[in-house]
Amino acid sequence: MSMPEQAWEAYLAANEQAYLDELIEFLRIPSISTDPEHKDDVRAAAEWVAARMKKAGIPEVEIVESGGHPNVIGRWNAGADKPTVLIYGHYDVQPAVPLELWETPPFEPTIREGRLYARGSSDMKANLLTTLHAVEALGITEGGPPVNVIFFFEGEEEIGSANLPAFVAANQERLRCDVVLSADSGMDGPNSPVLVTALKGVVGCQIDVKSGDTDLHSGGYGASVPNANQVLAQLAASFHTAGGQVAIEGFYDEVVPLTERDRADIAIGDAALDAFIDGSGAYTTWGEAGYTKTERVFARPTLDLNGVWGGFTGQGEKTVTPCEAHLKLTCRLVPDQDPDRILDLIRAHVEKHLYPGVTYTLTPLNGAAYPFAIDRDHPAMVKTGAVLTEIYGAEPMFVRVGASVPVTGIFQRTLAADTVELGFSQPGSGAHAPNEWWRVADLALGSRVYCAVLKALAL
Amino acid sequence: MSMPEQAWEAYLAANEQAYLDELIEFLRIPSISTDPEHKDDVRAAAEWVAARMKKAGIPEVEIVESGGHPNVIGRWNAGADKPTVLIYGHYDVQPAVPLELWETPPFEPTIREGRLYARGSSDMKANLLTTLHAVEALGITEGGPPVNVIFFFEGEEEIGSANLPAFVAANQERLRCDVVLSADSGMDGPNSPVLVTALKGVVGCQIDVKSGDTDLHSGGYGASVPNANQVLAQLAASFHTAGGQVAIEGFYDEVVPLTERDRADIAIGDAALDAFIDGSGAYTTWGEAGYTKTERVFARPTLDLNGVWGGFTGQGEKTVTPCEAHLKLTCRLVPDQDPDRILDLIRAHVEKHLYPGVTYTLTPLNGAAYPFAIDRDHPAMVKTGAVLTEIYGAEPMFVRVGASVPVTGIFQRTLAADTVELGFSQPGSGAHAPNEWWRVADLALGSRVYCAVLKALAL
Repeated sequence: MSMPEQAWEAYLAANEQAYLDELIEFLRIPSISTDPEHKDDVRAAAEWVAARMKKAGIPEVEIVESGGHPNVIGRWNAGADKPTVLIYGHYDVQPAVPLELWETPPFEPTIREGRLYARGSSDMKANLLTTLHAVEALGITEGGPPVNVIFFFEGEEEIGSANLPAFVAANQERLRCDVVLSADSGMDGPNSPVLVTALKGVVGCQIDVKSGDTDLHSGGYGASVPNANQVLAQLAASFHTAGGQVAIEGFYDEVVPLTERDRADIAIGDAALDAFIDGSGAYTTWGEAGYTKTERVFARPTLDLNGVWGGFTGQGEKTVTPCEAHLKLTCRLVPDQDPDRILDLIRAHVEKHLYPGVTYTLTPLNGAAYPFAIDRDHPAMVKTGAVLTEIYGAEPMFVRVGASVPVTGIFQRTLAADTVELGFSQPGSGAHAPNEWWRVADLALGSRVYCAVLKALAL
Repeated sequence: MSMPEQAWEAYLAANEQAYLDELIEFLRIPSISTDPEHKDDVRAAAEWVAARMKKAGIPEVEIVESGGHPNVIGRWNAGADKPTVLIYGHYDVQPAVPLELWETPPFEPTIREGRLYARGSSDMKANLLTTLHAVEALGITEGGPPVNVIFFFEGEEEIGSANLPAFVAANQERLRCDVVLSADSGMDGPNSPVLVTALKGVVGCQIDVKSGDTDLHSGGYGASVPNANQVLAQLAASFHTAGGQVAIEGFYDEVVPLTERDRADIAIGDAALDAFIDGSGAYTTWGEAGYTKTERVFARPTLDLNGVWGGFTGQGEKTVTPCEAHLKLTCRLVPDQDPDRILDLIRAHVEKHLYPGVTYTLTPLNGAAYPFAIDRDHPAMVKTGAVLTEIYGAEPMFVRVGASVPVTGIFQRTLAADTVELGFSQPGSGAHAPNEWWRVADLALGSRVYCAVLKALAL
């Protein structure tokens, strides 16, 4: 650190142990949003967050019903002439099954070798607390944050944020902001900050094929009526070319071509991605010809056959000509692909490639998300980047992410606000896996980053 | 009927209701041979059959272990100078899933409009009973059957008769006969008797594809590693040409070409087959170019994808790139295709068409069967044909059958005995489908046919 120590830095340092104890308390609440048996725990977590926000000095704090698990919203005004920053996070967690793979119970947080093991530690209760600790420190030492801050914490991120689009649309005035900081993010290593320039979108559907009213005996009919499994296999096989491209007509029409700068940024990750794929357990590689593995994962749209089933799938054999078969697929999208238009193209593809006379239904899956991109020269990116460089002593890497974070697209389209991803989870911390962990040191460090970024955004 | 009524006819007529009640009792036993949970029910069905055989007066009745579900064997001697007829059948049934498609529960037999609905009614508990009722009537009224009769009822027909070839080989002396009557057969309509001149063979396998050690997140990996569902779909789609031919190299090499007489015989069934397909509930037709629907079903080999599954098949969505997918397939064979050779060709096809680097296992399914053919001028065919003509007032059609009855090939190869198919299931009676039924009137009629055929074979 080259700067003289700030008052808020001293405050954060003095409270390090108390803040860690608080995180442990928060992690004990099993706020598993997908499990109806944990509904009360999810609400208890919302109440815990609201109470913690009030304790931090945030003047306006409210638990707001969403239709599902509630949102916790807070506001701390700095003045009408100041920019407004929305801090996004979620207080729900993934299920902890399979429990037998955890070394210590998922809701009994345990520290081993500088890591705090618990479900929700990395994704994202610690990240959420860094933002509250930061504004508390600024409140105590400077009377409040230097910008207007809106806190928006949801309880349905791990189940696809189904109620969030309507909620944001209905609460546009309340959530209006200049920029979003999403704390649901991570780093590339303890001293390797990253800035996310793009997230993939996602859209999916289930296709149910029906070739007749009843399954038939393959000996009596199989030679002269369509077999739904065969019809489905031929359809499923038609979605890709031999070269690994998606074969849906028009699929790539809206894809923004990669620039030389994009490809150079992406290539920085080649070695890391190779190691990632090598460690994945996959026996070989596959993908779209003409692109590197890294480009495919981070910057090219894809179509995945997530589930397929039809006919007799039990033990032994049944010589059946099935009349029904099913397919679940999802596409990962990149700017400027539109989930609704891609769904239309999928439908047109099915119409064209399905064996004539066979019927089908196409049901969109929940959780469609627009792809997201933010210019690396966006002022908030530049200011955040400067803070990260200062604190970590290393320039942030500009990275694209293969996964989808639906809220970024929603904030961009509904609030016209871009999102800077600012979280501190470490790679390999097992966000959705057993033995999820958080690096203890990142709790204090993350709060310092948030203080400094809020101050930078005020300038 | 031009003949004066025989005593056995009167006896059968007097017992019609009691025999129907018996059938209903037999059908209540869920003797699903493929399901380990129904193992005891399968044995209970064997015991029911053995008891019923004893009650019919058959002097020698024994439940004989086969290694799997037991065989029930009986013998009623008429004299060393008489021909020996082996009556074959099976007491096991297909699974009843999907249960929700049954109008009434599969193991609660229900009569509606002259049909008895139950799993196993048409395939083949009613047919089995016709043979016992026939010898009981001949025993009561004439002291016994006019020929030596061996009864051979197995409990593994619906799972491919895996233990039967070894059993027949080991019990050749006990089963030695001049001709076989297989009751596992049917008619072309209530007044349309048929004589089967050929049965298809069958061979199948399960193919398990593995592209990695673990399922992966589609956002992190899907663009650069193979998706097992996609690999499997492409393999599954490779088994047929666009023209509906089986695309396996060498698949048709041993197929005996159809003669003009064959095609003429087959063409007699065109209208019936059209009606059969029309009534099947299939929305459209499909099949090998260059052959009529009838030729395809009865005289051309096929490949059916019986089951396919992989990845996430539950409610909702899971953005997974699966590492495993599975396929069950069976081929129907015609003379002179060899099941073992076809399995070798399938393996070679998989080797050639599977995405490189992906592993697979190919497991043969139980119940491979050689195709079967019998000369329409065989003496037993001629005598049986005369009886059918007399009783139904219509000459039997000589037909080929698309289904497989493995025992016919086994009896031909091991006992040197040809098989006359003599059963009474009606077309469209849903042998392997929900709402399987049996025409009530055929129980008494079938017994009369069996009595008359046994008498004709004695001459």
